[in-house]
Amino acid sequence: MRSIIDTLDLTTQELDELIAAAEDIIAHPKQYRDKCNGKKLATLFYEPSTRTRLSFEAAMYELGGQVLSVPGADLSSAAKGESVADTAKTVSCYADIVAIRHFSEGAALVAARNASVPVINAGDGGHCHPTQTLADLLTIHREKGRFDHLTVGLCGDLKYGRTVHSLINALSRYQGVKFILISPEELKLPEYVKTEVIEKHGLAFEETVSLEEALPCLDILYMTRIQRERFDDIETYNRLKDSYILTAEKMRSASADCKVMHPLPRVNEISVKVDEDPRACYFKQVENGKYMRMALILKLLFENGEKTAQENYFHNAVCKNPRCVSSTEQELEPLFKRSADGSTVRCAYCEQIAESES
Amino acid sequence: MRSIIDTLDLTTQELDELIAAAEDIIAHPKQYRDKCNGKKLATLFYEPSTRTRLSFEAAMYELGGQVLSVPGADLSSAAKGESVADTAKTVSCYADIVAIRHFSEGAALVAARNASVPVINAGDGGHCHPTQTLADLLTIHREKGRFDHLTVGLCGDLKYGRTVHSLINALSRYQGVKFILISPEELKLPEYVKTEVIEKHGLAFEETVSLEEALPCLDILYMTRIQRERFDDIETYNRLKDSYILTAEKMRSASADCKVMHPLPRVNEISVKVDEDPRACYFKQVENGKYMRMALILKLLFENGEKTAQENYFHNAVCKNPRCVSSTEQELEPLFKRSADGSTVRCAYCEQIAESES
Amino acid sequence: MRSIIDTLDLTTQELDELIAAAEDIIAHPKQYRDKCNGKKLATLFYEPSTRTRLSFEAAMYELGGQVLSVPGADLSSAAKGESVADTAKTVSCYADIVAIRHFSEGAALVAARNASVPVINAGDGGHCHPTQTLADLLTIHREKGRFDHLTVGLCGDLKYGRTVHSLINALSRYQGVKFILISPEELKLPEYVKTEVIEKHGLAFEETVSLEEALPCLDILYMTRIQRERFDDIETYNRLKDSYILTAEKMRSASADCKVMHPLPRVNEISVKVDEDPRACYFKQVENGKYMRMALILKLLFENGEKTAQENYFHNAVCKNPRCVSSTEQELEPLFKRSADGSTVRCAYCEQIAESES
Repeated sequence: MRSIIDTLDLTTQELDELIAAAEDIIAHPKQYRDKCNGKKLATLFYEPSTRTRLSFEAAMYELGGQVLSVPGADLSSAAKGESVADTAKTVSCYADIVAIRHFSEGAALVAARNASVPVINAGDGGHCHPTQTLADLLTIHREKGRFDHLTVGLCGDLKYGRTVHSLINALSRYQGVKFILISPEELKLPEYVKTEVIEKHGLAFEETVSLEEALPCLDILYMTRIQRERFDDIETYNRLKDSYILTAEKMRSASADCKVMHPLPRVNEISVKVDEDPRACYFKQVENGKYMRMALILKLLFENGEKTAQENYFHNAVCKNPRCVSSTEQELEPLFKRSADGSTVRCAYCEQIAESES
Repeated sequence: MRSIIDTLDLTTQELDELIAAAEDIIAHPKQYRDKCNGKKLATLFYEPSTRTRLSFEAAMYELGGQVLSVPGADLSSAAKGESVADTAKTVSCYADIVAIRHFSEGAALVAARNASVPVINAGDGGHCHPTQTLADLLTIHREKGRFDHLTVGLCGDLKYGRTVHSLINALSRYQGVKFILISPEELKLPEYVKTEVIEKHGLAFEETVSLEEALPCLDILYMTRIQRERFDDIETYNRLKDSYILTAEKMRSASADCKVMHPLPRVNEISVKVDEDPRACYFKQVENGKYMRMALILKLLFENGEKTAQENYFHNAVCKNPRCVSSTEQELEPLFKRSADGSTVRCAYCEQIAESES
Repeated sequence: MRSIIDTLDLTTQELDELIAAAEDIIAHPKQYRDKCNGKKLATLFYEPSTRTRLSFEAAMYELGGQVLSVPGADLSSAAKGESVADTAKTVSCYADIVAIRHFSEGAALVAARNASVPVINAGDGGHCHPTQTLADLLTIHREKGRFDHLTVGLCGDLKYGRTVHSLINALSRYQGVKFILISPEELKLPEYVKTEVIEKHGLAFEETVSLEEALPCLDILYMTRIQRERFDDIETYNRLKDSYILTAEKMRSASADCKVMHPLPRVNEISVKVDEDPRACYFKQVENGKYMRMALILKLLFENGEKTAQENYFHNAVCKNPRCVSSTEQELEPLFKRSADGSTVRCAYCEQIAESES
């Protein structure tokens, strides 16, 4: 029994196998339409996300399974103060596999540690959203035929963008990937991602504030949204925002095979005029997300893999992250892990740096 | 690929075929229970309507298909500011056909123009609700065996009643239909419906404020609700409302085969005492609605019809309707159409009279 | 056509048959997975309850049927002021069987009297929740192998606890059952339950305020939650609450085969440390609830039983219960019944004592 909380729970080989499985599903859909007969997927969405929920549900239906749907928090037992752990134990009596989305960071790990069926993290607050990253990876693979030796532009909010950090983590496993980090000063990629991920893997990156300058050299442009809330003063926001909106004009300076991606939903950061551009791939990402979820559901239901290997957790530290599930979940066993070099201690649930007791 | 935004998108012949199809489904349900195996219907209800949503979902299940359900707006990506167009493009990756209900007039047309699968309008604000009208028509056909030469009483709010206008439009295509318009002064049928629809088709109508007087001569009585909100002063409302409530007493003056219809939900405009009356057909309408939706789903999924013929839209006009989707949808191409005689210009989305620029 | 509003609608024999049916489903699940092909269950939850809704939906899917889901009140036509009766008549056009949960006491009876398909009460306010009791009974039968000659401890809120009253009613039908009533003074079991149920069946009970004292002699400990709202002064609540929290320590004094039950959701009344104790059965109750719902759905859909026998209702009394559906439902026929000895008159909907007119 195996759960997926983070894309990094998957080895590079497993990732390649999932990509291959998804591409086989795309090639031979009929061969898969009865694979999950008699199986049930529960979609527990404490936080509404129609796109992600419908993607999981469509995936299960295309595999011949059924769906138990919990579309929003107000509809869940959470309203009655039930813990995530109890909900996970309960839903294990109803479903064969669970996809959970929750506003608390680490909630998916709590669910996975208590459920008796596989759990897929469909987004736990600002922490992880692995199936979005799987959708991004399948899109890159189908559009480019490879993951290595690509110049990947990441544009917009690189400071808080969960999908950006996750994609960098996943691509850093491959050779010769170069990242062009396009953002305003206020929203630059955090230092630790540059040092602990990109540089640690011996990969190169450049930082720029200009989308126009970066565009010509990109194999992939990954756009994200810049949220007004991120800025202290509205002037800065208004001065900056337009320069990070992708228009048909700007696309003229991009190379003929530069693929444009976006996790969606978009607001105005990509003009709808760009949708007709054959290089626009963001709606292909939506479809690819469904196929990767099908591949993932099959893997977790039918591969008799081990439960995710227990890391050597320890308990005597303190997580001060108010968005961490450990701040609300009752009687939750505190879990912490130390970085390879032993320098930092992180909460196992939200992966924020914790304060060690001693 | 074909979508249905308005009942008038269907020719009289297509309408007759749909009626025949629905009656065949009623006669041989078993023959249809696997027609949609492997197909998915998405019910996108930005505005909750349990009755309409469950009718579509029951229809799809009785055809052997599956359902992706979005029961309410707060559950949709709209909360994150996603446009109707993007939602339509996204859901096209998950479903084979979409039923959309939205509070904005014209939202269904926006969805249909952007989806890559058929779209059915399940109600777009005060604009259209074609499947309700299809339910009304099947009920009339099953109860009366014909559409022509009927005296149809329409009672209640004829000014704002969407279903009333739509039913008049549909019935005006048939010979010898006579409309008895029963309403208070404040809620009379708009002039343009009388002139542009009823009279234009050479049909007769009478107006009266008295339900009692009208009842004896009716083949069909179509009741609608009178909402307090429609009146400036509560006195007028209180003085009028009871006279438009159908009771068992009033039914005594109706003919033996006068069929009583209501789009539902009712509040108090028809006494529950009338429910046992064999002439009461409003719950039959509910059932007929399911069968017409089944027939419509089959038509749109399996008839390789052309995409709804492009009207000659033009762009240089302005829609001032605040309830029109064009007032909120991002980067929406403005579309306008001119009436046959060229006298009026209407917004293609909400069909309200627009101000032409020139 | 038969509906279930209260556990007592079932005879002891029917109850035993349901238990046997559920145990056969558990033993041979594959034999049941197509029993409901082509059938639809509607889950009408005016009041959200994820646990109960998913249990019904999982039950229907495991029988091969489909589900029409209404997860919350704001999503129902109730928002438009539709009566429970009209909703029941409408949903009868879509579904083959209905499970309804409603905040008004008696709403399920109103639905059953108006639906043309079987109705299952999934909880009507503080009145009844029969499928919870069926889950409790199956759990007791699977864990103990019998219902008679058991010492059953009921702990917590015995005054308002709906499930407690219902379980006492059900177990009082069996020989030699002894109840140990464990609660603070403020939340003691109501007198009429002691006299009209326990004593009337010639059964014994003891009352105590101490969980510790009661524990050693129990075959079953049924825990319920003590809600702060139940106390006038917070001091009393704080003084009492911990003594009614079950901990691993307290479990040491319980017998080796004392089974611990709880209707869930729990908040903190049972420490999660107890979950690993083999005597903890509250998550088994969740699973048993699904199997009893499967058995009940099959019974109602396929046994051509009579409609629940009409009691001799009379009309000339008044129900003063503000939580009763009769206080809100339009044009509802008032129904009252007199106790066997004729001493009391109760509303047939909410079963509260009514004031007779005369």
